[in-house]
Formats: sequence, C-alpha cells, structure tokens
Amino acid sequence: MAQIGVELDCLEGVTVVDFTQFEAGPSCTESLAWLGAEVVKIENPTTGDPGRRLRPGQPDNDPWYFHQFNANKKSLTLNLKSPRGREIVSSLLKKADVTVENMAPGTIERLGLGYDAVKEINPGIIYCQVKGFGTGSPYENSLAFDMIAQAAGGPISVTGEGDRAPVKPGPSFGDTGTGMLMAVSILGALYKRTKTGQGRRLQVAMQDAMIHYMRVPFSRTQQSGQAQLRNGSSRSNPALAPSALYPCKGGGPNDYAYIFTSRANPDHWRRLLKAIEREDLIGDARYDTGPARGQRAVEVDELIASWTREHSKEEVMTVIGAAGVPAGAVFDTLELMNDPSLAERGIMQTIQHPTTGAVKMPAWPVRFDGTPPRVKPSPLLGEHSAEVLSGWLGMSPQEVEALRQDGIV
Amino acid sequence: MAQIGVELDCLEGVTVVDFTQFEAGPSCTESLAWLGAEVVKIENPTTGDPGRRLRPGQPDNDPWYFHQFNANKKSLTLNLKSPRGREIVSSLLKKADVTVENMAPGTIERLGLGYDAVKEINPGIIYCQVKGFGTGSPYENSLAFDMIAQAAGGPISVTGEGDRAPVKPGPSFGDTGTGMLMAVSILGALYKRTKTGQGRRLQVAMQDAMIHYMRVPFSRTQQSGQAQLRNGSSRSNPALAPSALYPCKGGGPNDYAYIFTSRANPDHWRRLLKAIEREDLIGDARYDTGPARGQRAVEVDELIASWTREHSKEEVMTVIGAAGVPAGAVFDTLELMNDPSLAERGIMQTIQHPTTGAVKMPAWPVRFDGTPPRVKPSPLLGEHSAEVLSGWLGMSPQEVEALRQDGIV
Repeated sequence: MAQIGVELDCLEGVTVVDFTQFEAGPSCTESLAWLGAEVVKIENPTTGDPGRRLRPGQPDNDPWYFHQFNANKKSLTLNLKSPRGREIVSSLLKKADVTVENMAPGTIERLGLGYDAVKEINPGIIYCQVKGFGTGSPYENSLAFDMIAQAAGGPISVTGEGDRAPVKPGPSFGDTGTGMLMAVSILGALYKRTKTGQGRRLQVAMQDAMIHYMRVPFSRTQQSGQAQLRNGSSRSNPALAPSALYPCKGGGPNDYAYIFTSRANPDHWRRLLKAIEREDLIGDARYDTGPARGQRAVEVDELIASWTREHSKEEVMTVIGAAGVPAGAVFDTLELMNDPSLAERGIMQTIQHPTTGAVKMPAWPVRFDGTPPRVKPSPLLGEHSAEVLSGWLGMSPQEVEALRQDGIV
Repeated sequence: MAQIGVELDCLEGVTVVDFTQFEAGPSCTESLAWLGAEVVKIENPTTGDPGRRLRPGQPDNDPWYFHQFNANKKSLTLNLKSPRGREIVSSLLKKADVTVENMAPGTIERLGLGYDAVKEINPGIIYCQVKGFGTGSPYENSLAFDMIAQAAGGPISVTGEGDRAPVKPGPSFGDTGTGMLMAVSILGALYKRTKTGQGRRLQVAMQDAMIHYMRVPFSRTQQSGQAQLRNGSSRSNPALAPSALYPCKGGGPNDYAYIFTSRANPDHWRRLLKAIEREDLIGDARYDTGPARGQRAVEVDELIASWTREHSKEEVMTVIGAAGVPAGAVFDTLELMNDPSLAERGIMQTIQHPTTGAVKMPAWPVRFDGTPPRVKPSPLLGEHSAEVLSGWLGMSPQEVEALRQDGIV
C-alpha cells in the first residue's frame, strides 16, 4: 500500500528529551513528534519503556501497544544509574528545548533530574511532568494509571446504567486525554519562548486533567447542586428525547445507532419523523416540543426503535444523517480498522515494523493542508543510540561502542 | 474568595476570530484564550452561540454550560448575513492569526467565509475547521454532536458490561477531546508561522478524533484480529486481575474504588496483600503471578472486595495508594466540586458572573511555574463589541452605535 501523509515540519528543529513511559507521557511527546519535533526517548538498556512489555531475555511479546504511542520517535538507551550515563543525559538536556517525564512520584528526583537540577543545566528548557495527582493533593505520592484517573477525576461516576454499578469508559481517555493537555501547554510555552527564550516548569495531574473533560456534567451540578447521575446511553438530561442508542437489525452486541435531536433546533424532530416515515405525527402536540417528548420518552423511544430494528446500523446512520438529523452507528474496532474511507483519508496508516510486519494504525487525525502527518514506526530499543550520540554530542562510533560495552548505552 | 491563578501571556499578541459554537470548537479556542490569546467570539446579534441556549426574548436560562467553554473570551455580535457585517468580519480576518469554525457542513461557505475566500483576504491565516465527519467520508455532510462521535468513532462499542447493550461514556470526550487535538495542531502551525509567516488549513473530524483516544483497544484488535469487547469496569484484558471497581462501605451509587496491579510490576500484588492484611497469601502459588490470578479472577476479586466492603472509598484510596498500589475512589461531580484541595490548587476556580453570580468551575488544569491560568468569566452576548471594533478597526463609539441601530452589531 502506498504511504499516505506528509512529513510535517511545524516543529522542525525542536528537540525533546523524553523520559516518558506507558501512555500519558508518550502520547504527549508523540504528538510533538508527529508535528516534526525530534523526540529522543531515553530508555534503560535492559528492558526499555515498560510499555514495551519486554519479557526478560525474550523478544517483545506485545509491541502493538508500544507502536501506538511511540511512532516517529527515536530511541536512545542510557543507564541513568551510572555516572557516565548521567553525564551524557546532562549534555543532552543542555541542548534540548523540552523535556517530559511521567515516572512514579519522586523517581526523577532520585535520578538527579528534578526540576531544580535540570534548570541549573539549562535555564531555557521547558520542563514537564505528568503525574497521577497534583502537588499539594492528599494523594500526591500515589501511583495512577488510566483507570485510576478516570475514577478519581469523575468519568466513571457518570458512566453506566443508572440503577447499576458504574463502568469505566473503555478508551484510555485518562492517559491520552492528559497527554493532549500537556501538549497544548508545551506548545504555548514554546511559542512564547521564541520571543523570550524563557524556560518553564509545566505540571499536570491525571486526576485534574479528567476534570477538564467532565465540564458538561459539572455544569449540571452547578445548576442543581446535586451530583450528576449516570444514565446509560442518554445525555445528561433524561428528559431530552430522543437522545439514545436504538437497537438495529442484526441484533449483535454493537448493532445500535445513536440518534439525537438538538433542543437548539426544533427542525431535527420533524426531519426525523419524515425519515422514519411517520410524517403523520408532524405537528402532533404529544411530541412536537422537547418538554412534550420528555414527558413521553418511553413512547418516543419505541416510535424510533420500531423503525431502527428493521434497518442495519449503517442504513440508520446514512438515512437519518442524510435527513439532517445527528445519527451515528456504534462502530467497533474491527469495523473501523477495515473502513476503506479511514485508510484512504490517511486517518489509518500502515507501517512496516521489524517485529510485527505491516500494521495498520491510527495516525494524528488532524489534516494539514488536506493531509495528516505520516506515521513512522516506533523505534526498536536503542535503535537511534549511535545516531543521537553522534548528532547531538559529536561522539565517534568508537566512543559509542565503548559505552555499549560498558553497559551504559 | 481570593482569585487564584495567573494571567498567562504565552500567546500574547495572538488574535483569533472565533466562529465556533457548542463545545468541540469552543473548547479549542478557549484553551488558546487561557494561554493568553485574544479570542473574539463572533455571535449573531439575536441569540448568539446556541450553546448559550437563549430563549427568544427571555434571559439566558442555562448559562452554566456556556461558562465552561467560553471563559476568557470576548464576544462581538455581528450579523453575517448583512453586507456591512460581512465587510467588518473581512477586516477582522485580515488582522487575525487564526480562525476556527465548527458550523454544520456547508454553512461557513454559504456565509462567504470558506477557506478559499478567507485565504484571499489573509494568506497568512491559520484556517481551522472542526466537523463531524472528514472530507471524503461517506458521512461528510452529516451533522454530529458528542454522542454521535462517540458512537461512530468507537468509544461506545467498548463501554458497558459485556453481556448488555453498550453505554455512552458520560463525559463529553467527543467534543472536548476533539477540541484539544485541534488546539495542539493550531499551536504547531503557529510555531512554524513565527519563522515563515506561512498560512495553513487545518481540519479535524470528530469521528476521526475519537479514534485517537481508542488506540489501546485498537492495539488489541491488531494483535487478535477481533473486535475489542467491552468488559464493565475491567481493563481490556479480562485475565488481568485485580483490575476492577470494588464495592466500598456505604453502598451508595458511587461507593466504589478502582484497584489495579500492573503486570509490569509484580510488587504491586504483594504490596496489596500487605495493605489488605492478607500477608499470609504472599508467595502463595495460587495467586503469585498474573496468569495465576487471571485463572482465579473471581476468587481474587472476592479476596479484595471482602476488605473494601469494610472501608469507605476514601479510606481504600488512601490506604492502598499509600502502600504503593494504584487505587482511585469513584468521585462524583459534587464531591469534586467540594474538594478543598482542587480549590486550593486552582484546579477549580470561582468566577463572578452577572447572570449566575459566583460559580466554581474547572480551570485549565496544567500549572505553569506552579500556577494554573486564571479563569475569567464567559462574556455576555456582545459584551466586547465596542472594544473590539475600536481596538481592531479603529471605529469610533458613534460608528459602533450606528451599527447597533442598524442591527448589524
């Protein structure tokens, strides 16, 4: 398959020393790499980022996870516990524009690479930390992963059916959602730095980041003074009808389509009635206004479901969507992976990687002048050690080889 | 209460003409405003952004939603259907660095403000569009809201209990999640523009943006060739135990805590056993490895639940977290709104607004040199019309008044 996408040069010349692992940090630095920054991932020479899930002494048994969050980066192995390794990382930090870490609380400081130490080395650096909980929080020293952030920051409390236990939103919004807020902040600080040369310290906590995505539920609590409830597939307001997942033909686990009529546009309801061949009900006072439909939500839902059950989710999405009413089929990962339009448009791109061969994977989904950035495969452990040590620090192949033999690289 | 936070000047001097509405677009331009850009929201003089939910002839009945996504912006009313209104908006666009819109497909072009027209006015502008579906997609002309994006982009398919219908993740990740990807892209393009003056066209579709947050589920599909299933509160891998929501003392709808032991760190399990006073099981072959626990997941879950049921979710989070095991209570919106630490750290800030009085609301959660940006209240409709027309275009108060009387402003 022809490679789709362009090599973006927005951040050409921007250098990033990347100490991140797993997802919240790597998703952030990867977005910088996609925009053209040179992102050098510092990994320990034995196993690398635990997101590689290397089994000791055996080849990587799950590279797919790692691929997603480390595309377009370089990998440099470095033993940060050795004095020589620390010297080398200091030299790299001296030349970097940005550094990012998301290790367990206290770890980066124990490595001698806390904010004060790095600021000393390079006062103009943008020094960034992603943690589970904020400095000053009672949970400041606790660990967090995606699901912990989604619990402690609110998303889980509003997800699930109203009369049952809550569930975790399936996507890892806790990780990548946090990474994106840090990326926005880094780029804001970088912009300023072009004028002032000013260094900065940026910090984000995953719990706090989740609150940013919870603002619609918070707006309901501001209004009511009550905790926002969960309500299955419906919107925050249970009286808003129709606004739900409707069952479609096929009866499979994802044979549903979401149909929504906005309260900002009364035409949506009339268009929907026409699309489901119930023009006889247009103007019927029982259903004509939002509040009236809210009173008869069960009836309204059945009116719609009796039509959707006779059509596939794709038909429902196409017909209702073409009628000017918001509608979306519930697509699963396999359907999206096989969707020809996503591949043609470069939203899914295929990489070639030595450990997995061809892998089709999501790209940065924003198009620049019509084209998304090109995805380059995630690096093998230490793949760019010689390149970076030579390019950044002018080391000879012999010097690199000596470091390798000493177990420093 | 003393105002917390600083006025950030990262994007000082950056001007944004903002045609966005509801959330996906406004969350993007608001992040630019929080970083210090001058964001001028163009609104129609009668009702403004439909996100204001103004009822015709009556005061705004739901300003809380609008507050969240329009803090720190200016509002300029302008009738874009009048020739004079269009002239004015052209003059503004001529002076702007960035413009963003997320209207229904075709609308911005019908207003004469499509990409080609605006590029003609200002070749150096960064022109941005947020749509439901991508150009070239079969659904290109369809409308989308948050829940439609979460259906068509995959999140709903992986959320809910395995043997039941899927549910929608409660937070509006479909909207704000998309807005953040556009903000990252705008800032990348702005950085480049400081060197080249180069204008750009950026486009993102909400369906495509959701795929970016779905990369962990996609990594499982890449590995297995199967659609990723949903699994209630558990992680993507059902054999990963413990990794679930456990019921806590109190029995209320959100009296749960997530507890997770990483497969990258075998110590987590041993630390957990110690914390729940089951040191007797440390080293017990039935539970000592991830695969062994996966075989006995029901047993493992009950072992933990029998302890969590005796403790409040806050105790569980504190005790397990302090033991070095990832743990998170399921906090609801009211608990988070009343959390003293979030307010002290400026993650929640209180604004004073003429229509709602004091409102505590989430701020941009990233700290810059220790402090998050200060939240300023969302603008009243047209609040900054005179200021912007005078500041950007040099209009006199008399000229603005004449425009107002003609219904153009």
